[in-house]
Amino acid sequence: MPESFPDPLRETRLATETVFRGRLLEVRRDTVRLPNAQTASREYIVHPGAVAILPLLDNGDLLFERQFRYPVGKSFLELPAGKIDPGETGAAAAVRELREETGYIAHDWQSLGPIHPCIGYSSEHIEIFVARQLTRVSAPTLDAEEFLELRPLSLATIHAAILNGDITDAKTLAALYLAQLHQLF
Amino acid sequence: MPESFPDPLRETRLATETVFRGRLLEVRRDTVRLPNAQTASREYIVHPGAVAILPLLDNGDLLFERQFRYPVGKSFLELPAGKIDPGETGAAAAVRELREETGYIAHDWQSLGPIHPCIGYSSEHIEIFVARQLTRVSAPTLDAEEFLELRPLSLATIHAAILNGDITDAKTLAALYLAQLHQLF
Repeated sequence: MPESFPDPLRETRLATETVFRGRLLEVRRDTVRLPNAQTASREYIVHPGAVAILPLLDNGDLLFERQFRYPVGKSFLELPAGKIDPGETGAAAAVRELREETGYIAHDWQSLGPIHPCIGYSSEHIEIFVARQLTRVSAPTLDAEEFLELRPLSLATIHAAILNGDITDAKTLAALYLAQLHQLF
Repeated sequence: MPESFPDPLRETRLATETVFRGRLLEVRRDTVRLPNAQTASREYIVHPGAVAILPLLDNGDLLFERQFRYPVGKSFLELPAGKIDPGETGAAAAVRELREETGYIAHDWQSLGPIHPCIGYSSEHIEIFVARQLTRVSAPTLDAEEFLELRPLSLATIHAAILNGDITDAKTLAALYLAQLHQLF
């Protein structure tokens, strides 16, 4: 659905201000012109972008992680993922994050495009990659404050865990759906 | 996968502080004890929770919205959704949001459980509902700063739009996947 005409819903930036800059998060507040020519303010997180990887092992299992997510207060079963570093491509970030978090390298990479996890209040996009022909080359090399467990899961186990409510991470669900629509499994 | 033992990955709150409170966003910074007994700081958005609705029309179309999302700078095709008001249940919020954003009421509601859109830096959960036996009872009643277009889409059109990169909203992709795994279409 290409938009060759100006988007009638577009909001135009009139002014921008960084209203909070923490150790992790940056919040910006913009003044915008609405479609009805009124003005409004929009507050949102500025995010550098991220990647998530579907690592498909030779036996058909997907390599999941279990990680405690403090903002929600519990551990999640989720796909390997991480932020893109300054100047880094999404593809390079995917190779780096897979290696760091799992110790695996992949000989076959495929991009499934971006998703947007939080369009109401964050600029974040997450580039989804499928990694195949995996070889374990080292132990994970985690950041000092990072703790996770690796969990290879079959597709049947994943589907049951989703229906049970044991997999609720939206990037993971969206990535699995994309892979299925691309007929990757 | 019930966790009857203490979670070895758990991070325990030692202190909490609200470091930013804007018009829309609240940012908290907590000091936590890590699994290795070191301390770290965690910064995150405190969110009241939200709902998203899969409105299934009698002809099999799903009622999508097209809405400009300022943080990402473009319009998105997405499911109706909105924040839960203080003291409101998710089910009540779903009924209200569907009525406000589309003008429809539903005679058949089904919960598909929660998803978590942004586990790295937000406490947000989104409760997913399927709405069937829909009747249009009014025009949408939008907030003064809210603009959107309604777009009934067939499942074939939705799948094509996902593969084209025209639907990238993660809550929408996750909700569609949940509905498919629940064999709702």
